[in-house]
Amino acid sequence: MIPPSLKKVVVIGGGTGNFVVLEGLKKYPLDLTAVVSMADDGGSTGILRDELGVLPPGDVRQCLVALSNSSRLMRSLMNYRFENGGLGGHSFGNLLLSALEKVTGSFEKAVEEAGKILYIKGKVLPITTHQTRLKMVLDNRRILEGEREIYLSQEIDQGYTTLYLEPHPKVNPRVIEEIASADLLVMGPGGLHTSLIPNLLVEGVCEAICKSYAKKVFVVNLMNRKGQTTGFKTSDYLRELVRYLGKDPFDYIMVNVQKPPKPLIEVYANEGDLVDNDLDQERVIFAHMIGGLHDEPKRDLLKRSLIRHDSKKLAQELMKIVDHL
Amino acid sequence: MIPPSLKKVVVIGGGTGNFVVLEGLKKYPLDLTAVVSMADDGGSTGILRDELGVLPPGDVRQCLVALSNSSRLMRSLMNYRFENGGLGGHSFGNLLLSALEKVTGSFEKAVEEAGKILYIKGKVLPITTHQTRLKMVLDNRRILEGEREIYLSQEIDQGYTTLYLEPHPKVNPRVIEEIASADLLVMGPGGLHTSLIPNLLVEGVCEAICKSYAKKVFVVNLMNRKGQTTGFKTSDYLRELVRYLGKDPFDYIMVNVQKPPKPLIEVYANEGDLVDNDLDQERVIFAHMIGGLHDEPKRDLLKRSLIRHDSKKLAQELMKIVDHL
Repeated sequence: MIPPSLKKVVVIGGGTGNFVVLEGLKKYPLDLTAVVSMADDGGSTGILRDELGVLPPGDVRQCLVALSNSSRLMRSLMNYRFENGGLGGHSFGNLLLSALEKVTGSFEKAVEEAGKILYIKGKVLPITTHQTRLKMVLDNRRILEGEREIYLSQEIDQGYTTLYLEPHPKVNPRVIEEIASADLLVMGPGGLHTSLIPNLLVEGVCEAICKSYAKKVFVVNLMNRKGQTTGFKTSDYLRELVRYLGKDPFDYIMVNVQKPPKPLIEVYANEGDLVDNDLDQERVIFAHMIGGLHDEPKRDLLKRSLIRHDSKKLAQELMKIVDHL
Repeated sequence: MIPPSLKKVVVIGGGTGNFVVLEGLKKYPLDLTAVVSMADDGGSTGILRDELGVLPPGDVRQCLVALSNSSRLMRSLMNYRFENGGLGGHSFGNLLLSALEKVTGSFEKAVEEAGKILYIKGKVLPITTHQTRLKMVLDNRRILEGEREIYLSQEIDQGYTTLYLEPHPKVNPRVIEEIASADLLVMGPGGLHTSLIPNLLVEGVCEAICKSYAKKVFVVNLMNRKGQTTGFKTSDYLRELVRYLGKDPFDYIMVNVQKPPKPLIEVYANEGDLVDNDLDQERVIFAHMIGGLHDEPKRDLLKRSLIRHDSKKLAQELMKIVDHL
């Protein structure tokens, strides 16, 4: 009997949203690829970019940890942050990736070797292997430079003219191959301007996504980000992606209908409000997907989003699509 | 047929001398243990001690690399030194050990886990797991503080009163077990005051060595260190060790009789002169053991000693002893 070949799932993003999707899907028999945005320039990652001239390791590290089958200790080690002195603020995993890039002479090779050390399932691919920087021109003509500054801005919801990468980077050709041969493409959840769109700004990515025969699913964020996507509904997120993609390629749109406990919404009020759904279409999948409310040990890793998707529930919903492919 | 149990060889030292012995012995079927001095406080190691409060990783890292069966890439990674910024000067392996110590809460556990990551043969044991500092009182009453200062001093050969560790550390009990059950104990080569004697200053180590039924071999250095052991002969090295050991426990004393090429001796003139042998005893083993003259890639690791033992030849000589046990 010939075993059925594994379905190929490509997850496109960066940051903690990617982490949740990958950690959930890792448990299923899939051919899994994480495509990671290379626009990160905050914190430890930013210092390594500036001081060592390496590519930004932060989001890649999170994906590697999400896909890792190594011990809990190894995963803690990767996320361990030094506290004092010249090393203060650096996570060990970032240092591993940067040292590997120096030793191998290539970021892609570094990611591959780190994947072996961490026994990852599937593969992690940087969307580009060229140095680039995310920039945003606001309607008030202010220019925001770098992912960090954009992430922290409170005036994006006043309107922005354009978001771009400078220099305009060529795509990693392996990413194009993965997208072309995928059975399912997953975009989101994740920071709209800082994790999702930056992938679409890389030369050739939008065309590859739109041309791919893969089914395409967009997992909508749970929460809006204050000052950035204030009051956004499902259609607003979709419109923003389509603005870059050139067309609407999504076969499925996955939205959450579970309400988080009220005290948590109150805690979160300073960060943003819940995303409401305004799309009444057959392709919209409604699901209960809030989780992680008691995952204290993961707090450091996921501290950017207190209310977040449950990786298990999200993966179950995605697997329902995979099972029908 | 019952397979013969492996002979247990315990190598006591620290620094590049240890590296050469371990790298050579690694290729033989032995139960191998490296016992490492914890007095190092120079460079990257010193900064990590001061800023993070961790135990000194440098010498342990070298032993781990020597015993590693992992890829050449992994070994290069361990010795990779960051060049710029707040990370400048740190070797990646030191950061790995320090991060592991923070994550596991114990230096010994950190060494064990690093050993797994590097697929080491045998084991590496710190001689103590307590923070301590090497100090030396010179005859001129100057006090040298720290291994680094002692290593760089040019006035030790004018005479010193005492060498001690402060605070006086308790020995790692596993080291005592290893010494007690060893078939062969190897001391040297290595810096007399900074790598060899510091082990003997730890509470209980000298007694354990003298009481052990193991055969004991002292591998004498090839070169004297200018300002430290200027003009030392075999008997001088032996006398210094015996001063701390309380008695002369050595069954074998291994000395080199090969002359290095003249140009190399000239290059080395600023560092020190060749060690002459003045012992005419049956236990003295004469051998040709100079090597590494063409090992450019290893230069960084072994830069402290241009003229050094050939790990293969040294191991062959040690194995002649093992084979007669």
